[in-house]
Amino acid sequence: MNEVKIFCPATVANLSCGFDIIGLCLEGIGDEMVFRKKELPGVTITQITGADLPYETAKNVAGVAAQALVDHLQLDYGFEIEIHKKIKVGSGIGSSAASAAGAVYGINLLAGNPLTKKELVPFAMIGEAIASGSLHADNVAPALLGGFSLIRGYEPLDLINIESPSELYVVVIHPHIEVKTSEARAVLPEEVPLKSAITQWGNVAGLIAGLYTENYELIGRSVVDVIVEPARKNLIPHFEELKQSALQNGALNSGISGSGPSIFALCKGSQIANIVKNTFNKSGKEFYTSFDVHCSKVNNTGVIII
Amino acid sequence: MNEVKIFCPATVANLSCGFDIIGLCLEGIGDEMVFRKKELPGVTITQITGADLPYETAKNVAGVAAQALVDHLQLDYGFEIEIHKKIKVGSGIGSSAASAAGAVYGINLLAGNPLTKKELVPFAMIGEAIASGSLHADNVAPALLGGFSLIRGYEPLDLINIESPSELYVVVIHPHIEVKTSEARAVLPEEVPLKSAITQWGNVAGLIAGLYTENYELIGRSVVDVIVEPARKNLIPHFEELKQSALQNGALNSGISGSGPSIFALCKGSQIANIVKNTFNKSGKEFYTSFDVHCSKVNNTGVIII
Repeated sequence: MNEVKIFCPATVANLSCGFDIIGLCLEGIGDEMVFRKKELPGVTITQITGADLPYETAKNVAGVAAQALVDHLQLDYGFEIEIHKKIKVGSGIGSSAASAAGAVYGINLLAGNPLTKKELVPFAMIGEAIASGSLHADNVAPALLGGFSLIRGYEPLDLINIESPSELYVVVIHPHIEVKTSEARAVLPEEVPLKSAITQWGNVAGLIAGLYTENYELIGRSVVDVIVEPARKNLIPHFEELKQSALQNGALNSGISGSGPSIFALCKGSQIANIVKNTFNKSGKEFYTSFDVHCSKVNNTGVIII
Repeated sequence: MNEVKIFCPATVANLSCGFDIIGLCLEGIGDEMVFRKKELPGVTITQITGADLPYETAKNVAGVAAQALVDHLQLDYGFEIEIHKKIKVGSGIGSSAASAAGAVYGINLLAGNPLTKKELVPFAMIGEAIASGSLHADNVAPALLGGFSLIRGYEPLDLINIESPSELYVVVIHPHIEVKTSEARAVLPEEVPLKSAITQWGNVAGLIAGLYTENYELIGRSVVDVIVEPARKNLIPHFEELKQSALQNGALNSGISGSGPSIFALCKGSQIANIVKNTFNKSGKEFYTSFDVHCSKVNNTGVIII
């Protein structure tokens, strides 16, 4: 194989109670990337559409991730990469993670699949870090593996992939406003009450139990964030109104996607998901100059060849 | 049925990362209780062996739990209860919880089983609260239901029962020293660093995932408490040496049982469990004037008729 085209999906990280440790993969929304082997060593980005991103390999998320993997595999040939962004930069649904995950997946394919998807995660993390400023896996892991990714810890990386219950849908509204990462970080408390931390780890435990037992109501009761959401929600105008409208229309629960500004709602079944989608569309028109709404199942596959 | 004899097992609560939310049930160690219907209404404690506990119903954990259930069921007859304590009071393996769980189980049996074991939990909690000073379920729930109990939250009580992987053993050493509940509470931090809280909820999530997937190594990596154990371990002389000896001898992990002084070690398989048991026995002789060591599988049944 000398050329391959792939689809790398968007993701929702910081899943409420699972702040910093749980992300999920979206279906039907993602970037496309094309990879070509070339004789000369090195990684060259030959085309970028859909976003204004650097072509220089060392400054591009996909370039850095690809180069990290190429270095590891000690390949004596090189690659050309085309990046066709469909996920808006700064949307809070893993735009840079999709590029990083796609890059390592594409390179690995053309190199004859020496690594598993799970083994690719650390290289994607290196790429994504140049956009997010820190090494984290709760977007790149679900983008690669699909379903839910639990990152138990980082020293060393301990990643558990959990398949999504089949009727679990995600509705995401992306208001076209900017939430600065620095500001989203600045509002995080350095210390939290032990009582709140216990509530949060009870909810995290409930969410994991709900996923394994396909207990949608338990998932809904558990996707509650008593620590980060209260600190960050004021950075997203109309967050609370949108969340409440999702709940009133039957969503299992709702919260901030990544560090915002996107807001997600989890729903059981397509019927409720569509109602919540319509609600988000209606509210979006009222609240924002510009926005997108996405609605799909959780994607249990992750990045794929197209 | 007018008379029944039951066995109500000991339990390990505050399971490291699962402080306040996860407990497990032990096999082969527990109290025995006998219940007899009587014509006159009311609950009478007729015999207590193995511990110096009050006979007055309103001051006895079993009496209070039993009365709470009798009141709820609006029974027009009464009960006599014999309590034969085998679990030492103040050991940190759910002595009062066993009495409370046993009481509601026995009464419910003689009343014709109107409630499920899960429905009995709140009544057992009421009994146990007079010993522990607060309503909590992470001892009474596993004593009733067996396996692991996850208490997601209390408003309302949200209890998830998780069956133990079949090869999971628990070794417990109970040094005969007193850890005052008031002191164990006083050393708890009111606030914790967000970073530690995230580590803890990653571990809790890993533990739940490990239980559902029977991944013993993941369970071992996850049963780590970065918040409460560092604060409480100095209340138990030689805690760190015992923990390290368990780890060096192959235990999956080790921590404080309840609020101490008992120390538990989780092990995969009887062979390793027996080695850890021997290690605890050897160290116990060196460190303490008096102690007990218990070794068994996790008990997936909970309270039973004998």
